[in-house]
Amino acid sequence: MRGAVLYAPGEVRVEQRADPTIEQPTDAIIRLAATCVCGSDLWPYRGLEPINGPTPMGHEYVGVVEEIGREVKNIKVGDFVIGSFVISDNTCEICQAGYQSKCVHGEFVSATIGTQAELARIPLADGTLVATPGQPGPELVPSLLAASDVLGTGWFGAVAAEAGPGKTVAVVGDGAVGLMAVLAAKQLGAERIIAMSRHPERQELARFYGATDIVQERGDDGVAKIKELTNGLGAHSVIEAVGTQESMMQAIRSTRPGGHVGFVGVCHGVEVPGEELFFSAVHLHGGPAPVRRFLSELIELICNRTIDPGRVFDLTLPLDQAAEGYRAMDERRAIKTLLRP
Amino acid sequence: MRGAVLYAPGEVRVEQRADPTIEQPTDAIIRLAATCVCGSDLWPYRGLEPINGPTPMGHEYVGVVEEIGREVKNIKVGDFVIGSFVISDNTCEICQAGYQSKCVHGEFVSATIGTQAELARIPLADGTLVATPGQPGPELVPSLLAASDVLGTGWFGAVAAEAGPGKTVAVVGDGAVGLMAVLAAKQLGAERIIAMSRHPERQELARFYGATDIVQERGDDGVAKIKELTNGLGAHSVIEAVGTQESMMQAIRSTRPGGHVGFVGVCHGVEVPGEELFFSAVHLHGGPAPVRRFLSELIELICNRTIDPGRVFDLTLPLDQAAEGYRAMDERRAIKTLLRP
Repeated sequence: MRGAVLYAPGEVRVEQRADPTIEQPTDAIIRLAATCVCGSDLWPYRGLEPINGPTPMGHEYVGVVEEIGREVKNIKVGDFVIGSFVISDNTCEICQAGYQSKCVHGEFVSATIGTQAELARIPLADGTLVATPGQPGPELVPSLLAASDVLGTGWFGAVAAEAGPGKTVAVVGDGAVGLMAVLAAKQLGAERIIAMSRHPERQELARFYGATDIVQERGDDGVAKIKELTNGLGAHSVIEAVGTQESMMQAIRSTRPGGHVGFVGVCHGVEVPGEELFFSAVHLHGGPAPVRRFLSELIELICNRTIDPGRVFDLTLPLDQAAEGYRAMDERRAIKTLLRP
Repeated sequence: MRGAVLYAPGEVRVEQRADPTIEQPTDAIIRLAATCVCGSDLWPYRGLEPINGPTPMGHEYVGVVEEIGREVKNIKVGDFVIGSFVISDNTCEICQAGYQSKCVHGEFVSATIGTQAELARIPLADGTLVATPGQPGPELVPSLLAASDVLGTGWFGAVAAEAGPGKTVAVVGDGAVGLMAVLAAKQLGAERIIAMSRHPERQELARFYGATDIVQERGDDGVAKIKELTNGLGAHSVIEAVGTQESMMQAIRSTRPGGHVGFVGVCHGVEVPGEELFFSAVHLHGGPAPVRRFLSELIELICNRTIDPGRVFDLTLPLDQAAEGYRAMDERRAIKTLLRP
């Protein structure tokens, strides 16, 4: 099969890789209908995360089951399936508590599998994959793909920030995850949703997904603006969807005492000052999103056309042009690139 | 009146101070029945927090109302009252959300008032003070005094950590607040309560308050022990009641993914590493406890003899011997010193 491999910072090649096979009786092999490039793929692409030799890339996936191991019971050959970027058994105590991204048998898809490819082996298929009701029309595929990571991650950010009726929600970060957090806050019933963005086309998409206000300022100026919009108190719920020191402090400082910060940007070099956190009296919760917790609900919302997260893909390329897909995101010419194997 | 004043690290003097008077129509003057020394008083006493000239000390208090301003309506002269270590109006949006320690009109009692004295002026008396049902017997006074800070703070720690039925709760810190967190976890219905302590007399008090297990180890060894007691997963709820880097990391690392850390030790020099926090997937919440939120409930539990937090005072001295009260706590000869004005 063909698949994308990162050789060095900035160097993505699509090349021949060995076809995956069933290794464990709980595995499934899927043929990808679509895959994509994640904001987190840009960290190694930019050389900000080391790689250990040529690395198959990708951890987002939707597709049709080609083969299952003999212990797989919940899905069958021919099903159209979606899974999270973390493998989970969905039965351990941690999974049952809703933290499938920290499953005791968990592993990151990005670590070993690499779904920017034609085929992928998905371990613990019963716990990881969720089938759609029937075969989805092609127009639904981008939205279902979004559920695999960015939608599930933005949704978790909004849940972690306790977005809901009567709440003012602010979103730090206008990448795909930030935009999906706006969508999630809207679905969860938030009264007011403030998107922090300085890019006109992203502002527009944020408004499409439910943002009621746009704040262009960043850092302390952004915080001051959020305070100004909330009687000096700060937002009830703030979603951090970047992962830098500046964005984390912007999120904490934009939140009112007793409010909630949901942080889903993968932290890089962040140190949270304990004394400031203490006296802020905010709640802080985040981490790799337990997308599996939300998958069935998200699939339903997509299939009944309540939400349209697929609009977050503003560039679609054949898998063979993965390198250009990375470049476009790196240069912020694209929010998110969908790849067709 | 007489009152305790910190002149320099290690130097507490009880001396004549001006009697407080009604300054605002919302003030009350109370005659203290009892006051005490807080673990947080030891930071400036040890020279670890700077003071700006001679500083009246103390922020915990119970007593009888001597005089009220003309706008005070909820309490009257002669009432026996308890208040939090933070003044609050109890009507603003932040107070109404249960975060009275961050009231928009809030101020720390320790900053200006100094309740290690015979009399104290309490601003915003209607929002800050809660009267007991009738005059309490003298045997209840230590417990009511504990509600002013350490009980309310330990209680908030347990609530922030979401201690409750079916939960395994670990408490980092065996000072007065840690012991009160054990009591709170028990009252909130926790199934198993692990106190982390290496002092036999504090272990005994922890068991009295409801601890089911004692872990003597600290730091990474303590974390390993908690994991061992919880099927390798960590506790559901961990209360951090110290405020150092080591205790904070011990708390975070002792918590299972999706679990809750309630941190109520005032952070000194703590930096929480963002990446570790992210991948831990725990909830982190703490800060200066909104004691006022819990006061009515705590007073009821004390007055009907359900709880006996007053046992946390293991040294009682006349106010004039405040210096010895500080020394005994500094040298860990006493858990907490009650002072009788």
